[in-house]
Amino acid sequence: MIQLSSAESVDSEHRLILGSRVEGAPVFNRAGETIGHIDDLSIERLTGRTVYAIMSFGGFLGIGEKFHPIPWGLLEYDVERGGYVVPLDKAELKGAPHYEREELVALGGPSHAQFGERIYDYYGAYGPLPPYL
Amino acid sequence: MIQLSSAESVDSEHRLILGSRVEGAPVFNRAGETIGHIDDLSIERLTGRTVYAIMSFGGFLGIGEKFHPIPWGLLEYDVERGGYVVPLDKAELKGAPHYEREELVALGGPSHAQFGERIYDYYGAYGPLPPYL
Repeated sequence: MIQLSSAESVDSEHRLILGSRVEGAPVFNRAGETIGHIDDLSIERLTGRTVYAIMSFGGFLGIGEKFHPIPWGLLEYDVERGGYVVPLDKAELKGAPHYEREELVALGGPSHAQFGERIYDYYGAYGPLPPYL
Repeated sequence: MIQLSSAESVDSEHRLILGSRVEGAPVFNRAGETIGHIDDLSIERLTGRTVYAIMSFGGFLGIGEKFHPIPWGLLEYDVERGGYVVPLDKAELKGAPHYEREELVALGGPSHAQFGERIYDYYGAYGPLPPYL
C-alpha cells in the first residue's frame, strides 16, 4: 500500500481550496507533463461561481504568454501531482480562445456573453454554454 | 446626472471579476469606513463555487491579524467605492469565528462541515447553512 505524504493526504480530503492555492497551481496534460499554471480565476460576482480558470501556458504553445480561459468544469484535480489536468492536446490548446493579460478584464464586462459563446463553443465537446452566461 | 469615471463604469457593468481583483479588495462597514480587505477565497473544488471570502481586519478589531471566513452571499459590492460592504458592526465581527492564517487550510478539510456549521450558525440571521456544506 502506498503511503501518502502529509501534503497529499490533506489534498485528497479537501473539499474546499483556498483561491491563493489555485492560482499558481501547475497544469498538466494527460501524459503528466507540466504545460503551464493557473494564473487567475474568473468569478461571477453575484453568486461567487468560478466560471473560468485562466490558464497561462507560457512558452509551451510557442505563442509567448497568452491567457486561456477554460471552463472550470473541464479541469480535473490530480491529487498525486497537486495540480490540474487539462484534457486537451497541444494543437487543441493552441487553437483555443486566448487573450493578452490586459484583455482579461473585458471577459467579465458587457461582452461577457460573446466571450462565453466563443469559449464554450470551442470547448463544446465538453459541455454546453451554461444558462447563466 | 452623475458622470461615472471609466473605472466605475467598468465595475458596474462587470458580471465576472478576476480572483486577483477580489483578493486585496477593500472591505467597508455600512458607514463607509475601510475596516480591512479580502485576503483570500475558499472555493469548493468540484463545483468552483466560492463558499467564503476570507476577510482580514488587521488592527481594526484590536485582535491582531486574524482571518474571518464570511459566506460569500453576505458581501455587497459597492461600485462607487470599488470594494465590499460587510453589514456587521465591530462587536459582531469581533465575536465572529476567526482563525490564524495556518488554520485556514483546515477550513476545507475533513472538518469542513463543522467549520461550516459554526460559521453559518453565527451568521444565521443572514441565511441558513447551504445544503452542500
